[in-house]
Amino acid sequence: MRQPNSAPQKATIHDVAARAGVSIATVSLALSGRGRMMAETRERVLRVVKELNFRPNAMARGLHSKRSFTVGLLTDDVYGRFALPVMQGVTEGLIDHGVSVFLCALEDNPVLAQSHLDALMEKQVDGIVVAGRRVDRILPVDLGGLTVPFIHVMSDGGPDRVSYLPDEEQGARLAVAHMVASGRRRIAHVTGPARFRVAGERAQGWRAELAEAGLAPHGPGAMFGRWSEAWGHEAVAELWASDEPPDAVFCGNDQIARGVIDALRERGVRVPADVAVVGFDNWEIVAEETRPPLSSVDMNLRELGRQAGLTLLEAINGAQVPPGVRRLPCVLRARASSAP
Amino acid sequence: MRQPNSAPQKATIHDVAARAGVSIATVSLALSGRGRMMAETRERVLRVVKELNFRPNAMARGLHSKRSFTVGLLTDDVYGRFALPVMQGVTEGLIDHGVSVFLCALEDNPVLAQSHLDALMEKQVDGIVVAGRRVDRILPVDLGGLTVPFIHVMSDGGPDRVSYLPDEEQGARLAVAHMVASGRRRIAHVTGPARFRVAGERAQGWRAELAEAGLAPHGPGAMFGRWSEAWGHEAVAELWASDEPPDAVFCGNDQIARGVIDALRERGVRVPADVAVVGFDNWEIVAEETRPPLSSVDMNLRELGRQAGLTLLEAINGAQVPPGVRRLPCVLRARASSAP
Repeated sequence: MRQPNSAPQKATIHDVAARAGVSIATVSLALSGRGRMMAETRERVLRVVKELNFRPNAMARGLHSKRSFTVGLLTDDVYGRFALPVMQGVTEGLIDHGVSVFLCALEDNPVLAQSHLDALMEKQVDGIVVAGRRVDRILPVDLGGLTVPFIHVMSDGGPDRVSYLPDEEQGARLAVAHMVASGRRRIAHVTGPARFRVAGERAQGWRAELAEAGLAPHGPGAMFGRWSEAWGHEAVAELWASDEPPDAVFCGNDQIARGVIDALRERGVRVPADVAVVGFDNWEIVAEETRPPLSSVDMNLRELGRQAGLTLLEAINGAQVPPGVRRLPCVLRARASSAP
Repeated sequence: MRQPNSAPQKATIHDVAARAGVSIATVSLALSGRGRMMAETRERVLRVVKELNFRPNAMARGLHSKRSFTVGLLTDDVYGRFALPVMQGVTEGLIDHGVSVFLCALEDNPVLAQSHLDALMEKQVDGIVVAGRRVDRILPVDLGGLTVPFIHVMSDGGPDRVSYLPDEEQGARLAVAHMVASGRRRIAHVTGPARFRVAGERAQGWRAELAEAGLAPHGPGAMFGRWSEAWGHEAVAELWASDEPPDAVFCGNDQIARGVIDALRERGVRVPADVAVVGFDNWEIVAEETRPPLSSVDMNLRELGRQAGLTLLEAINGAQVPPGVRRLPCVLRARASSAP
């Protein structure tokens, strides 16, 4: 039975969250005093709690008591080009939920790798993000026995697990559509080794977008080689040996694109006036120093990490997260190398 | 009083360590079953224990019982170019002592940074490695209140703390000595902004080594600019506007060197026949793709991390480690760009 109106209605955690402009989880964390969050957020929540005279019940306060408010990030990407942006994204997504992220770098030695994973589990992390350096490479540890939720990022965990991957094919289509829109018609594709799954997916996007624009792939088809500048030079030599060289080159990564642009300059071919060049990865330290600066497809790794972190948090909080691959769209970072 | 020879003398932990070819700490860890190490090592130790019928006393077994066998690595190097090799080195140094390393990336926001540090401390790490992205930049956290030993790497903690830094001046001298030995006499220095401490130290090494060889600095003195390829191009334009351009350019990092080499090629100046070029950092992904491949000073970050990790372990085990800066020598990685 409801209380008569003589007594003010009891404030709920929903009221506190609404007035403080935060989630219920954040109110709960602020009250527990155990989670981590911005000091301003905590103070605002506590001020509202006082204003509304909200009294959390013990059960609600205890909801999170078994959690350690940390997640581990396991990676074999020892250069950190992919793992660190992912980590920044996971951190960004979780910090307002009071959760910190620890990175543990695995070596290729499975015994050492397993011992690092054991160490992480001993720290009682609430969950684990597995971030690969190659989508199609399995980390040298057995994740099957993990007792906490985990999620793959930039690493395909297979049909029974949750994996966040960039939409490689969509990213490649973006690049090709951008070059078609600026009037390019003979668009070649120079990329890494065919055994890399992403090389195949990007080549597929190149073909699909060309087909949609009613264009044929330029040359003999996607040119698979190495992920290196040197391969960019070699590919230009091959392409410019033909009667009709391309008016655009879509490259499978930024290093290849760098080699292509340097090789074109040395031949006296103007970029972008004669040929547009677009890379993949948006590796800023390379892309911005290329002459002219390199347009490139950005895999949005930070956002990938952020969403993966939030999904992991749902799983930690008991949600049933359906398994499978989730692809997040890439974005194009247009610079001078592909200007119309 | 010694036991008479009728009973075999009791084996000590020293005997086990000697026969197994490992340290006493490793024997202790293998026995505790709590530390992490290679399975082969543990098996070898346990086999020797059995052979010698060694019985550890309870006190010895308990020696390490308050330790968590983990250390944290705090860094503000979000690109990981410096922090990840340091982490690999720390891991390499500590793995055989059963210790795992967790990286926690700090943002520039001091509130968030402090909350990440708190999270690390809640995990009861035995010690902390603080790895900077700039030697002369202080991390945005207060380390004064830490209750565990900590050590700085690639970050100068000041006179009261232990800091491991590369010997920048010695590294620069190596590069200059190498160019002098191959007959170069007019050696210019093109480097980053003067406000970076390492830029000053490398310039100082350049001047000192030239003086020792009886040579004057080429040109107006060290050319301070930016850590970029574009600055390498601009510096070449300046240097080659003079009557007597240099026959060698020592660059403050590999990106500048890359710009210098590209600018020289475009002027028709041959590297290394006309001009030798040496960089700094040995950033392999750049150095190996430069045409010709770039000679560069390697700061030995992995070894720096390894030694820092071992020193931290001594401190964790109760040793008094004298404060101050420890400089480790750089090595030169000679490639084609500086061949005689």
